[in-house]
Amino acid sequence: MTDPFDSTDAVRSGSPLRHLQTVAFDAPFKMRLGGELPGVVCGYETYGALNTDASNAVLVCHAISGDSHVARHDAEDDLGWWDALVGPGKAIDTDTHFVICANVLGGCRGSTGPGSIDPKTGGPYGPSFPDVTVEDMVDVQAMLLDHLGVTKLAAVIGGSLGGHQAMAWATRYPQRVGACCALATSTRLTSQALAFDVVARNAIQSDPDFHAGQYYDKPTRPDTGLAIARMLGHITYLSSQGMSDRFDIDRNSPRQIDTDFEAKFSVGSYLAHQGQRFVGRFDANSYVTLSMAMDLFDMGQTHEQRVEAFAPATCEWLVVSFSSDWLFLPSQSREVVAALTARDQAVTYTELRTGSGHDGFLIESDVDRFGALVRAAIGPAEAGPPGDVEDEPLSLIDGRIVALIQPGESVLDLGCGDGRLLSALRDRGAGRLCGVEVKERAIVATAQRGLPVLDYDLNKGLPEFSNDSFDVVVLSATLQAIGRIDVLFDEMLRVGRRCVVSFANFAYRDLRQMYAEHGRSPKAQGEYSYDWYDTPNRRFPSIADVEDLLTAKGATIHRGIYLDTQAGKVIAEDDDPNLNADTAVLVISRVG
Amino acid sequence: MTDPFDSTDAVRSGSPLRHLQTVAFDAPFKMRLGGELPGVVCGYETYGALNTDASNAVLVCHAISGDSHVARHDAEDDLGWWDALVGPGKAIDTDTHFVICANVLGGCRGSTGPGSIDPKTGGPYGPSFPDVTVEDMVDVQAMLLDHLGVTKLAAVIGGSLGGHQAMAWATRYPQRVGACCALATSTRLTSQALAFDVVARNAIQSDPDFHAGQYYDKPTRPDTGLAIARMLGHITYLSSQGMSDRFDIDRNSPRQIDTDFEAKFSVGSYLAHQGQRFVGRFDANSYVTLSMAMDLFDMGQTHEQRVEAFAPATCEWLVVSFSSDWLFLPSQSREVVAALTARDQAVTYTELRTGSGHDGFLIESDVDRFGALVRAAIGPAEAGPPGDVEDEPLSLIDGRIVALIQPGESVLDLGCGDGRLLSALRDRGAGRLCGVEVKERAIVATAQRGLPVLDYDLNKGLPEFSNDSFDVVVLSATLQAIGRIDVLFDEMLRVGRRCVVSFANFAYRDLRQMYAEHGRSPKAQGEYSYDWYDTPNRRFPSIADVEDLLTAKGATIHRGIYLDTQAGKVIAEDDDPNLNADTAVLVISRVG
Repeated sequence: MTDPFDSTDAVRSGSPLRHLQTVAFDAPFKMRLGGELPGVVCGYETYGALNTDASNAVLVCHAISGDSHVARHDAEDDLGWWDALVGPGKAIDTDTHFVICANVLGGCRGSTGPGSIDPKTGGPYGPSFPDVTVEDMVDVQAMLLDHLGVTKLAAVIGGSLGGHQAMAWATRYPQRVGACCALATSTRLTSQALAFDVVARNAIQSDPDFHAGQYYDKPTRPDTGLAIARMLGHITYLSSQGMSDRFDIDRNSPRQIDTDFEAKFSVGSYLAHQGQRFVGRFDANSYVTLSMAMDLFDMGQTHEQRVEAFAPATCEWLVVSFSSDWLFLPSQSREVVAALTARDQAVTYTELRTGSGHDGFLIESDVDRFGALVRAAIGPAEAGPPGDVEDEPLSLIDGRIVALIQPGESVLDLGCGDGRLLSALRDRGAGRLCGVEVKERAIVATAQRGLPVLDYDLNKGLPEFSNDSFDVVVLSATLQAIGRIDVLFDEMLRVGRRCVVSFANFAYRDLRQMYAEHGRSPKAQGEYSYDWYDTPNRRFPSIADVEDLLTAKGATIHRGIYLDTQAGKVIAEDDDPNLNADTAVLVISRVG
Repeated sequence: MTDPFDSTDAVRSGSPLRHLQTVAFDAPFKMRLGGELPGVVCGYETYGALNTDASNAVLVCHAISGDSHVARHDAEDDLGWWDALVGPGKAIDTDTHFVICANVLGGCRGSTGPGSIDPKTGGPYGPSFPDVTVEDMVDVQAMLLDHLGVTKLAAVIGGSLGGHQAMAWATRYPQRVGACCALATSTRLTSQALAFDVVARNAIQSDPDFHAGQYYDKPTRPDTGLAIARMLGHITYLSSQGMSDRFDIDRNSPRQIDTDFEAKFSVGSYLAHQGQRFVGRFDANSYVTLSMAMDLFDMGQTHEQRVEAFAPATCEWLVVSFSSDWLFLPSQSREVVAALTARDQAVTYTELRTGSGHDGFLIESDVDRFGALVRAAIGPAEAGPPGDVEDEPLSLIDGRIVALIQPGESVLDLGCGDGRLLSALRDRGAGRLCGVEVKERAIVATAQRGLPVLDYDLNKGLPEFSNDSFDVVVLSATLQAIGRIDVLFDEMLRVGRRCVVSFANFAYRDLRQMYAEHGRSPKAQGEYSYDWYDTPNRRFPSIADVEDLLTAKGATIHRGIYLDTQAGKVIAEDDDPNLNADTAVLVISRVG
């Protein structure tokens, strides 16, 4: 049967896994919630070759309906579910890295699950299969790595349930993980996502063909319930706008498919098709088991609990969320980032602006955008100079800022742009470095330099960061675009033991004159080069304004460097910098 | 059995309808999609008394799971589903108005539906019940009004499917509707909402006890499928944040309820309870019929189609959306508003900021906020002076603006505040009036004056309004808060044949001096009374700046009135208003 929807499907249909390998572990396997299996089989596929010092291994973890076939092994092979990311020359480069993807414990595509034979009874486990947790899945994968001779992973990566596994890896086996890439995931499901899972399981378990999970010897399986569960899942993987874009045009013209389900609307025929196709490749008991594992996954409800949960981790992190993902919210990814940041761990985070919904981590056009971040996070197979961005000379102002920071000091750069300043600081032997930026291209550029960078709106303050967590917080040429700079100053003074602020002076002689003599909104080079009605700026302070505000806050101004950048000279403190300097660089702190 | 969730439930459980009345219409009833019923029964309840000229009737339309019991008839009566809105002294005041609420055609609470006896067979209609549309429901209600002696409704109101009915009323029986209040609704469902309905119907129709809809003579009913459909519905009625607030704390502590469904998590026990309770009061065939009626409802996919669909309407409108409603999006309500506005119809619109989700139209705390708008829309039972806000004297500037507008001219006031200017214009005999405002309190105040007002962000332009649709567009003391005033000017000049713009002059002598002499961000009375770092303003132009921009756009400045409001005097054109006036009032148009 030809597939009327395949062109736009995120996840391919299940085919025989011709490259599946299996390894059997015969020792009893103790599970986290008290169950025990007499032994486990792990089904997996590998791509590329392990290098001599076994330092180039990347473990890919799949989502609830995925399997080990992450990518094609050759041109004739079936499509994989993450071909966009994994393959020769791709972000996860199988020419240079050894990629492993294992079917999860509890699954039905090669690893031990409810449909496997229980040696004690000689029949399938069915409902007697013990409760599986994400941690159990990870423990089996650890056994697989031992079997493959991989002591330490260059990186572990996954989206959704795969992201849960990646985070469990980083905290459960911290010594074995170099980098953790957690996409479209969270420390625990929202109540809404949990509720959808409950309804899906109810649909399966109330199907009369379910027989309390013992249906393997019956002529029929709970296909109806499983198909309904899958339909529901599909809705939650797409964004509302994405569904509209796809199904609004021909709403009343369903595809002609053979189905017992309703197929009155185009979206209905799509769901029926997806549901029916799924039952051909998935086992209902596995679906119940794996969705329950997701629901039970819990790395904390509160910030404090999450900080505690991430305590063991020592790796570098990449966290990616998708703006239209309503199943795993971007705010949940930010919670992960906040917990890691509170632990002083190096994190890069971005929220990809996309209409793809939760499926964003699978969709090629989105993968093409975050792929560079994955590549940067995994790093080269052989150690070498970090990043591939050429260093360019610093601006006069940035040069001044660098000179104010001592080697070894940790620095948070707010509005870090392409990371040039941070890179210069690293060259001088800085301590821990972190950038904050909102522009996608700048985030990628910073990450490609091998520097951690967070996609975060400074208008929301700095809730991700603990008190005194950096030696220096820098805010360079960004102040004028912040709505509540007074609030951000408070936050900077809280987070940094010292802050360096550079900004353009709106009372600079030339600007003042435009107002005073011509009665018109001033324009100048740099931050104030925009027309008054079309500028990203919203605050227009003078040096005196900013210094007044800081003084009113009780902050100490340790040093002021005043520059006339156009003339290329320093303005002395007694030479009226508020009139003669176009730029100020202030060093401040909360206490004297 | 006590109800472990009742305290926070939006919709009460079904009880015997002790105040239900019925009327039977024996003539054949022809339905929109071709079906015909040999006759229909309409079940309904009424509150209050019809006045002598039958001018005080309000029809309330219920949502998919509602019924005629909109409110209590007395203190001993069961709670109604909209007690917060309907009753003595409430927004829909049964002391002054005659309130009617009928069970919909296709329902199962008093009106003819699939469970009713087909006189031809002597058994229930079951699957032979014809497809019902929202328009059919409304046609039966129209027959009921004839029966009750109500020629014209003061208002029709409903939320969700009830909103569909209200809009169908306004367009199908335009002469019979004074005001239409459409809450949490849309011209057609999103593909996502449609998809949820498809899954819900599949759950019902694939229940083995469904028997293709002929289950009435069977010992069991498709309770499992119907309960699953209801669980799914409940998720879509709540916001994600609302579910988190309610279920995250005790996620793993389900309420102890007697159920065959999964009750492992607190949200699971809630859903199981809701599902089970629903099957006790609702018929599966009715659910299928009514959800299909919602899915088939279609007043247009494109703006042009919607404008066409609303063409017959002549009533006044109130449209209310709820910010966290993801089943019926606020953007869909704005589409309704845009279609009505394109037809020059009087609309008040607000998007209530709430975490209640789609249920917002039912939740008491939200009803308390939009109730004043409903009261204003329905109007007093007897004709009288509109509104209850006392007129206050106009400011000097507003007085100038009023003097620039001729009686009979239509006026759109952008940033209308509490509607004072519009009210003054009405007193002078203006034509069609409309305000735009974002502050909830100001919107209510304007509506209470009996003036239409739209909750709309001016930074998004004026897509709701057609070219040349107002004689005058006013923008008073608002310019400085608009990010892209150049874009808004284009929009104003497109929509208004003439525009009146008043704004504070940032190059006024006193302000200029603060910069020139003191080198500090200026402050002054009025719009510029804020600190530079804490102001809603983001644009700081002089009169010359604004005039330059308008000239560059090719707009004609017909007149400039320049005021020194502090000195209370007019500044002549040759007296350098850019220096000496603190405020300008400009009359402009696109052409000369």
